[in-house]
Amino acid sequence: MIVVKAGGGEGLDMEAVCADVAELVQQGEQVVLVHGGSHETNVISEQLGHPPRFVTSVSGHVSRYTDREMLEIFAMVAAGRINKLLVERLQQLGVDALGLSGLDGRLLEGKRKSALCIIVNGKRKILRGEYSGKIEQVNVGLLRTLLAAGYVPVVAPLAISYESEALNVDGDRAAAAIGAALKAQKMIILSNVPGLLRDFPDESTLIPHIPLAVAQEHLDRYAQGRMKRKLLGAIEALHDGVEQVVIADGRVAQPVHRALAGYGTVIQ
Amino acid sequence: MIVVKAGGGEGLDMEAVCADVAELVQQGEQVVLVHGGSHETNVISEQLGHPPRFVTSVSGHVSRYTDREMLEIFAMVAAGRINKLLVERLQQLGVDALGLSGLDGRLLEGKRKSALCIIVNGKRKILRGEYSGKIEQVNVGLLRTLLAAGYVPVVAPLAISYESEALNVDGDRAAAAIGAALKAQKMIILSNVPGLLRDFPDESTLIPHIPLAVAQEHLDRYAQGRMKRKLLGAIEALHDGVEQVVIADGRVAQPVHRALAGYGTVIQ
Repeated sequence: MIVVKAGGGEGLDMEAVCADVAELVQQGEQVVLVHGGSHETNVISEQLGHPPRFVTSVSGHVSRYTDREMLEIFAMVAAGRINKLLVERLQQLGVDALGLSGLDGRLLEGKRKSALCIIVNGKRKILRGEYSGKIEQVNVGLLRTLLAAGYVPVVAPLAISYESEALNVDGDRAAAAIGAALKAQKMIILSNVPGLLRDFPDESTLIPHIPLAVAQEHLDRYAQGRMKRKLLGAIEALHDGVEQVVIADGRVAQPVHRALAGYGTVIQ
Repeated sequence: MIVVKAGGGEGLDMEAVCADVAELVQQGEQVVLVHGGSHETNVISEQLGHPPRFVTSVSGHVSRYTDREMLEIFAMVAAGRINKLLVERLQQLGVDALGLSGLDGRLLEGKRKSALCIIVNGKRKILRGEYSGKIEQVNVGLLRTLLAAGYVPVVAPLAISYESEALNVDGDRAAAAIGAALKAQKMIILSNVPGLLRDFPDESTLIPHIPLAVAQEHLDRYAQGRMKRKLLGAIEALHDGVEQVVIADGRVAQPVHRALAGYGTVIQ
């Protein structure tokens, strides 16, 4: 069982990702593909006159403010456009793909974070009306039912709150939750860099291997921006039963095969 | 087993539809909900600078021209926005809804109509690049697997061609294909009129009952615009094993319950 996370940011070769997934599936491997949606959501929300708003948390992280309107645009883009076009492409490659979001059958369930504590002009502020959250439960029975019936699940990064509200969740951590729930052997997180870099953005400073015991330390010292969440997802997945996580380059030919061959940052 | 088709046009009370579906499910009824997407697709495609284009076929029917860009917008709106917000609402009402499009697991498969034969200024023209089609096969095994596991399928009206291209399909006829494949006892098609009217739009001329034997004749004589497809869907479904179809008002309180009680046009 391999969980592949790809897409969300710019620059990934999703055509190459689909080709690799198709080859693995044809070799009899069970695969779950988890995708993102942030870049296309930015583009389309801008076109729809509701541009993305990014805020800085008190801990210094920059994140998207997902109000209800943005949540609905995110659902439309991630679970509609991106998910269905991936399903179409995989079907063309002979893969019986089936797209789901975390809302469907309560696949991904968690706690809503309804307010953000942010910094504006040096002052703390509470920003309410947020629709994001952290996944706490995976409906693994649903995934196993679909996998047993021969389908390849393609998952959009939305979740459902305990009060049944749709939530925007991080795709890397959604993949980690799914990988952990399925006790996947491998989780591949594809990115628009070759892995964790000691000296970002110098790609010659790739860190090829991190033992789990020092992964948190590496996260604190080297991870920048979205790489923090990828490493966090990797650590969570490994603690919860995934055997190996590879954070690898998604811009190249055969990105999944390369990651499986160990190119990238291998954490275990 | 009841298949409910609701939404697509304007004016339907989807909140009331969801409440009725929830009540039926809680009473132990198996339900599949099929929705539309045309009205919201018109609104959003307009906002995105790709307004809908309607063409007149040689037989006089007015239909949407779905080029590839419009197909992608339709997928985004129908399978993303409408489908996921319905799943969210049903989950809030205690229904374990699971949204799919006809692409997913090749749920709805058919032949692509890649060109339209249209009339422009009195002249026949061939318009290529169309992405619509007619459903010829339903993956009934997938629906039965999900129903047996306790999920309520919510289906967006897209299909997949034999060449694995995404297609825009008519929601009424998608519901008919699903109803027939499942040999549903009842199929309820909710509309923004009370049923088939003898003298459209005079709602006092509702035709309450049509024997299947004369349904085609009624279609030819009385059905206007989108009502033609609803009746066509009804006839197809009844020929293929559905016991009763009711075309009923979707703008009222308890629309599904009213239809089940026989308010509307009952065809059997």
